[in-house]
Amino acid sequence: MGIVIPLEEARDPGESLKALLEIVREDMDAINRIILDKAVSDVELIPELAHHLIDSGGKRLRPMLAIASSKLCGYPGQGHIRTAAAIEFMHTATLLHDDVVDESSFRRGKKAARILWGNQASVLVGDFLLGQAFRMLVDVGSLPVLKILSNAAAVIAEGEVMQLAAAKNTSTTEDEYLAIINAKTAALFSAAAECGAAITNRPAAEQAALKSYGKNLGIAFQLVDDALDYSGDSASLGKAVGDDFREGKITLPLILSYRRGSDTEREFWRRTIVEGNVTDADLDQAISLMKKHKAIEATLERARSYGAIARDAMAIFPDRAEKRAMEDVISFCIARAY
Amino acid sequence: MGIVIPLEEARDPGESLKALLEIVREDMDAINRIILDKAVSDVELIPELAHHLIDSGGKRLRPMLAIASSKLCGYPGQGHIRTAAAIEFMHTATLLHDDVVDESSFRRGKKAARILWGNQASVLVGDFLLGQAFRMLVDVGSLPVLKILSNAAAVIAEGEVMQLAAAKNTSTTEDEYLAIINAKTAALFSAAAECGAAITNRPAAEQAALKSYGKNLGIAFQLVDDALDYSGDSASLGKAVGDDFREGKITLPLILSYRRGSDTEREFWRRTIVEGNVTDADLDQAISLMKKHKAIEATLERARSYGAIARDAMAIFPDRAEKRAMEDVISFCIARAY
Repeated sequence: MGIVIPLEEARDPGESLKALLEIVREDMDAINRIILDKAVSDVELIPELAHHLIDSGGKRLRPMLAIASSKLCGYPGQGHIRTAAAIEFMHTATLLHDDVVDESSFRRGKKAARILWGNQASVLVGDFLLGQAFRMLVDVGSLPVLKILSNAAAVIAEGEVMQLAAAKNTSTTEDEYLAIINAKTAALFSAAAECGAAITNRPAAEQAALKSYGKNLGIAFQLVDDALDYSGDSASLGKAVGDDFREGKITLPLILSYRRGSDTEREFWRRTIVEGNVTDADLDQAISLMKKHKAIEATLERARSYGAIARDAMAIFPDRAEKRAMEDVISFCIARAY
Repeated sequence: MGIVIPLEEARDPGESLKALLEIVREDMDAINRIILDKAVSDVELIPELAHHLIDSGGKRLRPMLAIASSKLCGYPGQGHIRTAAAIEFMHTATLLHDDVVDESSFRRGKKAARILWGNQASVLVGDFLLGQAFRMLVDVGSLPVLKILSNAAAVIAEGEVMQLAAAKNTSTTEDEYLAIINAKTAALFSAAAECGAAITNRPAAEQAALKSYGKNLGIAFQLVDDALDYSGDSASLGKAVGDDFREGKITLPLILSYRRGSDTEREFWRRTIVEGNVTDADLDQAISLMKKHKAIEATLERARSYGAIARDAMAIFPDRAEKRAMEDVISFCIARAY
């Protein structure tokens, strides 16, 4: 039995990002220059390690959202560029710390920084990048933007701690999991989108709309990521299929399979996830249980539903190229799954 | 041969802090309430871990300096309280990450948080506290203060990376070591002192004076710490004598002993520090080599010299209780060694 894919989501994911890429192109060049410039330090290890991750070609979705939302709001200045660069630094810092916490070996198809330079350097360079991010934001000088991003920094860390506390707990509920990804992933998407209104001093309703757009987009993005980990191909993932499973990470496909499963099946999840006793054949078994309970399908349905909320949040804005491009990002995030 | 102690430094260290404690008492009560309040999170692990460190009774020297300098500058508002609490959070975050990086087992006479809750939680709660610190600073709303402290956050991390890169390198020069402690320790002392002038919009010369005071005080403080690790008693240190030695940490007493030593002695340092091959008798040998080369004595002499710079930096301020109390802190930092 196949998964029913609504036609609108079935187009080439790359296609959905085209409009956004066009809108942000010039500013992204400037951002990339700032990123290279601010990753510099007399301490050699810092640019070396930072560049490893920066050069490895993330999509830079978060800074692109900050640029697009600033343009949508008609921001006339240059501060959005540093703001967007700071957001990418915050994201990079989080990835560095994440990999240490998750003991991950790969990131974006390359060896994780912690494998090449050690956990210690990864923690400290993450701290440095976070410090640089706040330096840049202070340079921009918008207190509303600083408020949004300092808030995001605390919330992201809170989400990571929540995830750590829920580790290996197969009875985590969907609501609890949602609270985790709301904090650890959606908070930065939300902050990136909200910044555009904040830096332009737009009315509270527009700021709230962009915040809601970013938050729901971020949740959808994370849920698709979770689904891809059990169904994608490693080349496009930049990591092996089943990494979450092998690391015993609790994600929605697993939560749903566990809840919908029989006692024998729950015993399987306990052995593999809680006890970490995993053989090569177990990943196949895990995927087949997920198929049986339509857990991947349900995860993607949830993602589409959050995507729809994000789309409706944008409705108050007039029809403009930036708005359409930001709506396309929702399609992009979801189309990645197909 | 004993160490010659200038009489002015020989008084009871606690005595030297009395004036400062008196000046900051009321504000410190408010700070302590904010610290408890802001360490709260729905994620249980966060207050649990944060309180472990917060309750363990650090001296809170950095927030006290921020309060004293604000009062010295005649600051009329309330923002200095949140600023000082944010500084203490930044310091606590650094300690959490430090212990992970150094693989330390004890902190302030208690088991290190990473031993009780793991490295992962220590990294993430550190991130959370740093995020909370910036949230508080944004609430205060002074961009000059935000600039000083975001700068300090990046510089501190840079210093920690420098220290990591110099790890086990016995040929680190005194200048290189000074650059490390200037960044990793003195930057926050300096920022704390400077904040008082920044938040009050005092002339650049006063801000520079307080910055210089804090920086040199911080260097002196760290050098005395280094000396104490080879000469103090564990009860007052909150950690075992010789921890730096056993961890193979490069500090000034070791740098000087290595440089002043014979080839055979350097071989001893190589075996113990570089190779980490340490027997119980080695600490005694290390201390006896330091005595032979007057390395502890020289370290404390350096500390006194930086203390003198800090004292002169304050000379431009009129004679006031806050100024005298801040001068006394210099004596306190140095008197700890005796």
